[in-house]
Amino acid sequence: MAYLSDLALSIQPYIPGEQPKDMQYIKLNTNENPYPPSPKVAQVLNDMDPAAFRLYPPPECEELRESIGKFYDVDKGCVYVANGSDELLSWCFPAFFTGKEPILINDITYSFYKVYAALFSVKTEVVPLNDDFSIPMEYYIGRNRGIIIANPNAPTGQAISLNEIEEIVRSNPDQVVIIDEAYVDFGCESAVPLTKRYENLLVVQTFSKSRSLAGLRCGFAIGSPLLIDGLSRIKNSLNSYTMDIVTLKLAKAAVEDADYFYETTAKVISTRNRVSEKLREAGFEFADSTANFLFVTHPKITASVLFEKLRAQGILVRYFNLPRIDDYLRITIGRDEQMDVLIQKLKDLLMNGRKYGTNSKS
Amino acid sequence: MAYLSDLALSIQPYIPGEQPKDMQYIKLNTNENPYPPSPKVAQVLNDMDPAAFRLYPPPECEELRESIGKFYDVDKGCVYVANGSDELLSWCFPAFFTGKEPILINDITYSFYKVYAALFSVKTEVVPLNDDFSIPMEYYIGRNRGIIIANPNAPTGQAISLNEIEEIVRSNPDQVVIIDEAYVDFGCESAVPLTKRYENLLVVQTFSKSRSLAGLRCGFAIGSPLLIDGLSRIKNSLNSYTMDIVTLKLAKAAVEDADYFYETTAKVISTRNRVSEKLREAGFEFADSTANFLFVTHPKITASVLFEKLRAQGILVRYFNLPRIDDYLRITIGRDEQMDVLIQKLKDLLMNGRKYGTNSKS
Repeated sequence: MAYLSDLALSIQPYIPGEQPKDMQYIKLNTNENPYPPSPKVAQVLNDMDPAAFRLYPPPECEELRESIGKFYDVDKGCVYVANGSDELLSWCFPAFFTGKEPILINDITYSFYKVYAALFSVKTEVVPLNDDFSIPMEYYIGRNRGIIIANPNAPTGQAISLNEIEEIVRSNPDQVVIIDEAYVDFGCESAVPLTKRYENLLVVQTFSKSRSLAGLRCGFAIGSPLLIDGLSRIKNSLNSYTMDIVTLKLAKAAVEDADYFYETTAKVISTRNRVSEKLREAGFEFADSTANFLFVTHPKITASVLFEKLRAQGILVRYFNLPRIDDYLRITIGRDEQMDVLIQKLKDLLMNGRKYGTNSKS
Repeated sequence: MAYLSDLALSIQPYIPGEQPKDMQYIKLNTNENPYPPSPKVAQVLNDMDPAAFRLYPPPECEELRESIGKFYDVDKGCVYVANGSDELLSWCFPAFFTGKEPILINDITYSFYKVYAALFSVKTEVVPLNDDFSIPMEYYIGRNRGIIIANPNAPTGQAISLNEIEEIVRSNPDQVVIIDEAYVDFGCESAVPLTKRYENLLVVQTFSKSRSLAGLRCGFAIGSPLLIDGLSRIKNSLNSYTMDIVTLKLAKAAVEDADYFYETTAKVISTRNRVSEKLREAGFEFADSTANFLFVTHPKITASVLFEKLRAQGILVRYFNLPRIDDYLRITIGRDEQMDVLIQKLKDLLMNGRKYGTNSKS
């Protein structure tokens, strides 16, 4: 009895980072922000009237879109919001990519893109990153293809410049180019200003990282009204109200508190730069990151061993058992004191490296 | 420049009931509950720690699923939750229906079903309701087809019996039968107990109506672990975290307060029965409703006229300009005093019926 469709049976769903409950971990595995959300969020939460929950939310989320538009200096008609940037990215596939030439995605990138492609029968052409994990621009120029690029890329943390993005957008004028800026606020240039000049550019961001609201689910896109209409058509064919009343109000409070946003992202960046230095001193190798994580490898100990040893000692980082990156760890930037514990543990593990036998590199 | 896909351009999105802000309406147009959520919801809201928002929610929503399972006497592995029952229903189409024979849906029913079918390229065979808007059972028995039925049906409010559902489920054993019970708690028998005996039955419900949480977005499904796995595969191919931390906690509090649930649904039922009587006295015609709305027509005044006149006087009801039902209004059951205002306005409008000229029936 084949109750499940062939599609459901064949698809390989995305697997999120673990959220174990067996002990209290230093949690550096899902790129969450180590700082709480803006105090303004707590204030608005405090003022919420539960009696209002009996009514449906405003389906077009005008107020939140307006606040986001104000912060990014674009009209609210150029802003769309969703239940996390993943939901927004998923809408992009049926909105812009079905029935067209294969879209271009990097071989090493956010692995959800290829799941969306499979779910919505969108063909993909996989672009291999350069050996240093930089993005090979020549694959993206003048291809006349749909494109989705994470910038900075995940899990590598490496970014392309605004000029490079503009070159890609300009040279693929008949197709939609999506720049997924989940991590952009930690030191990389946003392509939002380009959306005013290029109707085919959609920038996607999230409140989960730089605004410390992963638990509330809020993502947004900025682009031309034409692209926003495409998103709206798909969203309204799936779920009239994807944003609940609480998230709408609290996300609005978060985006309106610019000072707190600048302050906390600066703290993460400062910690990242300090940790980068320490890890290089300890022999780790990695490119500079413009995200809230580092993507590191070590010539002496294999990443999978480090991952397990750290886990046993109460530190969670992310290990992807995937081609080309199976000797790397992605380490989220936490608070300074958490990172000091990590660095000490790593140094200890390196010192005792020999005892891991076949797992250590010779 | 065809940035939008043919799919996005051709699809006819669902249009939710209006949420106008130009004045304070008596809002009887989107089947919201007139009573606030359980006081336990307010209490849990009050205890929420905004610092927790920085972390992702538990992706598998175990605690809420367990509480729902307890209330409905099923294992949590037979429960799945989503950001509103619409999201859950949308997952059913790729999970169970793609690449198969046309599924059966009623001509008059929740109009989102055919939007999902279009979005996921699922073919449909439309089953015409009987003249009295009852469901023609003969179309559903022994068809070996995927089936989705709202019970009670929307917008008619009419229900089929548990025996009839069992006959449908048993006689279509190789396909999934979905019973959408959004309104079941207002006086109709739930098919949840049948899910223990029929692996091909999925029951979908929502917290938006009987639990007064439309603004928070929470729906759920109960069915065999095999069907739950199908839903999980699609959900995890779209968005790892569709339920936010606040909704997870508050919905849990709502489902755990059984007393309040029984009390408020009983109040709505009592108001509905009283209003039904008054409307029949005023000449309205309609079948008995087992939902929190009435679907009415009047021999003397056309529904579209009544709709506009009520709106002008501050009362919103729902009018569908669709074949077979374009002379009907769907009226949500509000609080007693709201319904008394409605009944008085309707009587006044009927009394002054003649002045609407060509719009009134002769």
